[in-house]
Amino acid sequence: MAKKPLRVGMIGYGFMGRAHTNAYKQVGQFFPSQHEVVLKAACARNEGEIKKFAAQWGYESVETDWKKLIARPDIDVIDICTPNNLHKEIALAAAAAGKMILCEKPLAMNTAEGKEMVAAVEKAKVANMVWYNYRRIPAVTLAKKLIEEGRLGRVFHYRAKFLQDWTIKADLPQGGQGLWRLDVAAAGSGVSGDLLAHCIDTSIWLNGRLDSVCAMTETFVKERMHNLTGKVEKVGIDDACTFMGRYANGSLANFESTRYARGHKAAYTFEINGENMSIYWDLHDLHRLQIFDYKDEGKIRGWKSIHVTDNSPDHPYMANWWVPGLAIGYDASFTHQVADFIAGLESGTPQGPTFRDALETQAVLDAVLDSAKQQKWVDVAK
Amino acid sequence: MAKKPLRVGMIGYGFMGRAHTNAYKQVGQFFPSQHEVVLKAACARNEGEIKKFAAQWGYESVETDWKKLIARPDIDVIDICTPNNLHKEIALAAAAAGKMILCEKPLAMNTAEGKEMVAAVEKAKVANMVWYNYRRIPAVTLAKKLIEEGRLGRVFHYRAKFLQDWTIKADLPQGGQGLWRLDVAAAGSGVSGDLLAHCIDTSIWLNGRLDSVCAMTETFVKERMHNLTGKVEKVGIDDACTFMGRYANGSLANFESTRYARGHKAAYTFEINGENMSIYWDLHDLHRLQIFDYKDEGKIRGWKSIHVTDNSPDHPYMANWWVPGLAIGYDASFTHQVADFIAGLESGTPQGPTFRDALETQAVLDAVLDSAKQQKWVDVAK
Amino acid sequence: MAKKPLRVGMIGYGFMGRAHTNAYKQVGQFFPSQHEVVLKAACARNEGEIKKFAAQWGYESVETDWKKLIARPDIDVIDICTPNNLHKEIALAAAAAGKMILCEKPLAMNTAEGKEMVAAVEKAKVANMVWYNYRRIPAVTLAKKLIEEGRLGRVFHYRAKFLQDWTIKADLPQGGQGLWRLDVAAAGSGVSGDLLAHCIDTSIWLNGRLDSVCAMTETFVKERMHNLTGKVEKVGIDDACTFMGRYANGSLANFESTRYARGHKAAYTFEINGENMSIYWDLHDLHRLQIFDYKDEGKIRGWKSIHVTDNSPDHPYMANWWVPGLAIGYDASFTHQVADFIAGLESGTPQGPTFRDALETQAVLDAVLDSAKQQKWVDVAK
Amino acid sequence: MAKKPLRVGMIGYGFMGRAHTNAYKQVGQFFPSQHEVVLKAACARNEGEIKKFAAQWGYESVETDWKKLIARPDIDVIDICTPNNLHKEIALAAAAAGKMILCEKPLAMNTAEGKEMVAAVEKAKVANMVWYNYRRIPAVTLAKKLIEEGRLGRVFHYRAKFLQDWTIKADLPQGGQGLWRLDVAAAGSGVSGDLLAHCIDTSIWLNGRLDSVCAMTETFVKERMHNLTGKVEKVGIDDACTFMGRYANGSLANFESTRYARGHKAAYTFEINGENMSIYWDLHDLHRLQIFDYKDEGKIRGWKSIHVTDNSPDHPYMANWWVPGLAIGYDASFTHQVADFIAGLESGTPQGPTFRDALETQAVLDAVLDSAKQQKWVDVAK
Repeated sequence: MAKKPLRVGMIGYGFMGRAHTNAYKQVGQFFPSQHEVVLKAACARNEGEIKKFAAQWGYESVETDWKKLIARPDIDVIDICTPNNLHKEIALAAAAAGKMILCEKPLAMNTAEGKEMVAAVEKAKVANMVWYNYRRIPAVTLAKKLIEEGRLGRVFHYRAKFLQDWTIKADLPQGGQGLWRLDVAAAGSGVSGDLLAHCIDTSIWLNGRLDSVCAMTETFVKERMHNLTGKVEKVGIDDACTFMGRYANGSLANFESTRYARGHKAAYTFEINGENMSIYWDLHDLHRLQIFDYKDEGKIRGWKSIHVTDNSPDHPYMANWWVPGLAIGYDASFTHQVADFIAGLESGTPQGPTFRDALETQAVLDAVLDSAKQQKWVDVAK
Repeated sequence: MAKKPLRVGMIGYGFMGRAHTNAYKQVGQFFPSQHEVVLKAACARNEGEIKKFAAQWGYESVETDWKKLIARPDIDVIDICTPNNLHKEIALAAAAAGKMILCEKPLAMNTAEGKEMVAAVEKAKVANMVWYNYRRIPAVTLAKKLIEEGRLGRVFHYRAKFLQDWTIKADLPQGGQGLWRLDVAAAGSGVSGDLLAHCIDTSIWLNGRLDSVCAMTETFVKERMHNLTGKVEKVGIDDACTFMGRYANGSLANFESTRYARGHKAAYTFEINGENMSIYWDLHDLHRLQIFDYKDEGKIRGWKSIHVTDNSPDHPYMANWWVPGLAIGYDASFTHQVADFIAGLESGTPQGPTFRDALETQAVLDAVLDSAKQQKWVDVAK
Repeated sequence: MAKKPLRVGMIGYGFMGRAHTNAYKQVGQFFPSQHEVVLKAACARNEGEIKKFAAQWGYESVETDWKKLIARPDIDVIDICTPNNLHKEIALAAAAAGKMILCEKPLAMNTAEGKEMVAAVEKAKVANMVWYNYRRIPAVTLAKKLIEEGRLGRVFHYRAKFLQDWTIKADLPQGGQGLWRLDVAAAGSGVSGDLLAHCIDTSIWLNGRLDSVCAMTETFVKERMHNLTGKVEKVGIDDACTFMGRYANGSLANFESTRYARGHKAAYTFEINGENMSIYWDLHDLHRLQIFDYKDEGKIRGWKSIHVTDNSPDHPYMANWWVPGLAIGYDASFTHQVADFIAGLESGTPQGPTFRDALETQAVLDAVLDSAKQQKWVDVAK
Repeated sequence: MAKKPLRVGMIGYGFMGRAHTNAYKQVGQFFPSQHEVVLKAACARNEGEIKKFAAQWGYESVETDWKKLIARPDIDVIDICTPNNLHKEIALAAAAAGKMILCEKPLAMNTAEGKEMVAAVEKAKVANMVWYNYRRIPAVTLAKKLIEEGRLGRVFHYRAKFLQDWTIKADLPQGGQGLWRLDVAAAGSGVSGDLLAHCIDTSIWLNGRLDSVCAMTETFVKERMHNLTGKVEKVGIDDACTFMGRYANGSLANFESTRYARGHKAAYTFEINGENMSIYWDLHDLHRLQIFDYKDEGKIRGWKSIHVTDNSPDHPYMANWWVPGLAIGYDASFTHQVADFIAGLESGTPQGPTFRDALETQAVLDAVLDSAKQQKWVDVAK
């Protein structure tokens, strides 16, 4: 039986452009479905670069104007891999054109933009998703399963950190290829939108709504060369952001992200402490989930490291990969996301995080930045 | 040459009474000096219990009234191992009687009490110290050394946690033997004075003054049976306390303590992130210090786990113990503290933490509790 | 410039068929070269299955007779993914037809077969390689680099283990899809050819020639149902194999492999102890390399865990993947192998392990099995 | 009620002299019984040194001739902490004098000596024990408990290593204070008697009789200065010793010890793989026991790290120490041994390892050295 094509138009070709494309290419082999992803067109302003990217990654064609891409009738899905400040405009246009949308995180520059985007996709009734890929690391998905099975009991604490160290160098410019994350105009914020956004998305998924937060931000390197102006300019992003908070379920939040934690590359960790079970995960060893099960006998209680690599239904997604003990990479989380997106199309039950789900993260981010500015507790908008 | 006796009068006989006494008995063998510790008297209201304790641990005599103990001319040092609410009164009396004082932590119920105590010992010019024993775990002392050698460069972050899980049981009473830490009248506060106090003391020692804090506290179990009244009463202590802060050196603080983190027994951890080096320690593996040294060559950079057990000057205190690889216990930190206290007497240079040092921790604790109550940032009193 | 096609004919479609095919599909994106891999044909006796495989993985055509595949002029490379007992016959035919050959490990059933195969490819002057993929896990390749840089000094010990637990179940049949590894007729041996072969290949690469060995084997489950005869038959493979040995460089070997080590999925670990540096690796955390560098200062000496994920030349292959901290999977080792195979074609310098390299591993395996049988030390044939 | 004195006469004052004495001093406080240990006399040829030791550690008197010590009527127990070559003569004399004997490990220079010693103590009916202290690290004792409870099922593998690196330095002399372990005349053997002896004792205790072994030894540094002759002389000890073996219960042994494993200080590890449970322990983190329990549900199976520090009956010996999470040191294993020795006296059931138990280890050591010499499999004498 012929498969139904899912024709992708990719905007952007950086780190995420590559990660998503690899997923599009892998999904049919590892998670076969009734759809077949077709790499229809890649789009970026720089013609030379996008042609090179398209050739290397197998896109059939290129565009240099995203509006033209959206206008093409042979495109089913728009994948937005641009800097954050372009998400809204593109998404609105894509929705208006009836395209499905897969948007890089964070959804938007702020909640106001996010609301427009949610309204647009819901009005247009187009399938939509945001690339909070960590939900689909098998160990993280397993954590979700354990929570859904009610194993934790009353939850007391949720703790998340995302630590990096790559911007300690004071001579790194703000802006430019790979460095737009340091430019507040392009990124909207610093570590909060880039790193905390991931932590918040996972936390809402695992532990529910955050009601209120109290945050602190810091910019350690106050000025950096700007690649557009060629001048040393004030840095507008947050280099570090810590916040405390209270969840609707009564548990306490402690979140922290920074790019100044020497020795940490991408140390996204979370821990949730329930009455009966605690769970810990660390992106640096992404194939492991650690749990403490109070229901174990006293003499053999301890933290257990689950190597989430069994090719069995016990370990989410892993039945489609290799054999026990053989870890998959970070990249597989994107493959899983595409697989689930397609499964959602086929079942009629959209898979999250949708734009609406991602809006909730945006509201927390807004509250966090507002709290840091005002130096007081702020309620998360509903 | 005959040794000079150091005659100890111990008040209390609980967990800390045992830990200190073990240290008094070990110090002469592992850290010989010109002094010899003599276990002169142990004191507690319950005559039967204190006699039993004295017999088992080798105290020459007992008292049931601490005022009598202090009045004895054959006592040089008073060791205060009582609940927190008695520290001040005893310390003032001991100082007035010209006794040296070793006081369990936290120094006092609050800063006001602490100030009186500092004034008293300084006026009386008696040697004084507070049992913040974690400074003298060899791995922690090594961390201090690395910091003093200037290896970290500019510091960006200091993170500390002290996680336990022993009070999740709602049927635990407040007050009584071993449980006075749950009774606000005896303890003054909950995890802040009990656990955070340790974290703050170490942090001030390693990273300097904390200028301001913003805290959140929670009492998860609101009512517990009280052992004195026999009735279910409101719980007055904090079960969990998280705070953010800013250090005088520009770095950011993130502290958390709780007795509701399932799976953690006494998980005191700290991490300090400097420009050139990061350091991590975990009480659950107290013999290890983890460091990341950015000065290492790129290809072999990573977190290094130092097994701080070499009987060489490289590893603080360890030359006096066994051979490389053989870990000492938690208890040794007290032995080291007594050794250093005696060394301070012999050299004339008092070793910290003195009452005055501990007062700084008290000021942070007061600011933390005040901040949590007022839900706003609070400056730490100078 | 048009790329040169490298047209693959794959024989087999099991675990390894999938792993190799994924690599063929990824290599052009992550390691672009002047060649383009083309999935020309997949071959297996079961027509239904191979058609399904070809459709899912993108092979252009199928064959059910490997002789026909080899005869096709539009095939450049034959990839042998069959059970071990077919390697020789296929390789000899492919070489005779002038095809390049990529052969699954172990090279052959024994040294005698291996010699014929080496002679065939060398006579035919066809490029050849054996899929000992672990050499190309970045952490393992980094180990090789550190050794080549002379950092270890005199080597004293080499220790390797490959522990699994999947055959403890006594009701697992011997033979059949995925289970031919339990059938001595198809596999030649048990854990020695399957698991130890990997350990030996890496060890020769890192530490040189093994001169002599003394081995012990055991078959814990003596009889299993045979899927071909439908009867319970004697098990002919080794369930566990341990050996000691002496390297040409004077160091000592300790190797062990088993499928009866409860709790271990694919625990391939090796450790090499040199005068100045020791190195440790564990497949269960394949992105980490652990080293101990004696040249570090005494006070900060310890085992360091290198997270081999920097997208820089420091970390082999990683510059072509993601950003620091984001681990790649087991599967990437195959992608690297194809990339290097192509690089070898383009540079004219064949990349190992060639058939000749793999023959040395075969000689050790023969010596190991012979030693176990004779219960005495055996010299490895040169 | 007055306690019964247990008057100790200690021969030797080195590392073990200190470790045992610390245990004698602690036992009454942490493990009170009807006996009271009295440090009656310390003995060594060097009068100055033994007087210093006695003064520091609290022995009431000294002797310079062990025969005189044994002749003293006020001594109940002789503790033999001399080099191995003196064990037999002293033990025979002590037994003849009706003294209880606590002998450092290994029991003797060889099985022949050991047999004489066993005969002597059994004839004299004196309480006797050998200081294989690792049995009484709480985590190791817990392992024993789990095994006795039948949790492992059929055992397949037992693996032990004891790795050190302190003799890599070629300029270390053989013989002399602290270095007699390098002198074959004093030590009898190298790592086999020093390190493997511990591994073998634990293994027999946990996994039963070893039937046969096949060993390899190596002396990496062939000549060293001898401190007695002042000349460079051939080294007679084994620097490294590896052996394979078969247990009576059908499981396989893999043992290794060396003093040339750079980066390892005292890395005694063991692992036992049973059908239903595997257990792992590492002296470098002596307070942890790791287990894998196959009976756990599939989705949460993994290796669990038990922090054996609960002051409850769940964790052997720990109820007598501190509170959960606070580790005790290596030294406590000796305190536990004395406590159990005394408990054995009081109950009338001798606690092992007795001389007879230790003789079994000696038989394995003899077989190991014999096998290495003959380069063949050797049966362990019964």
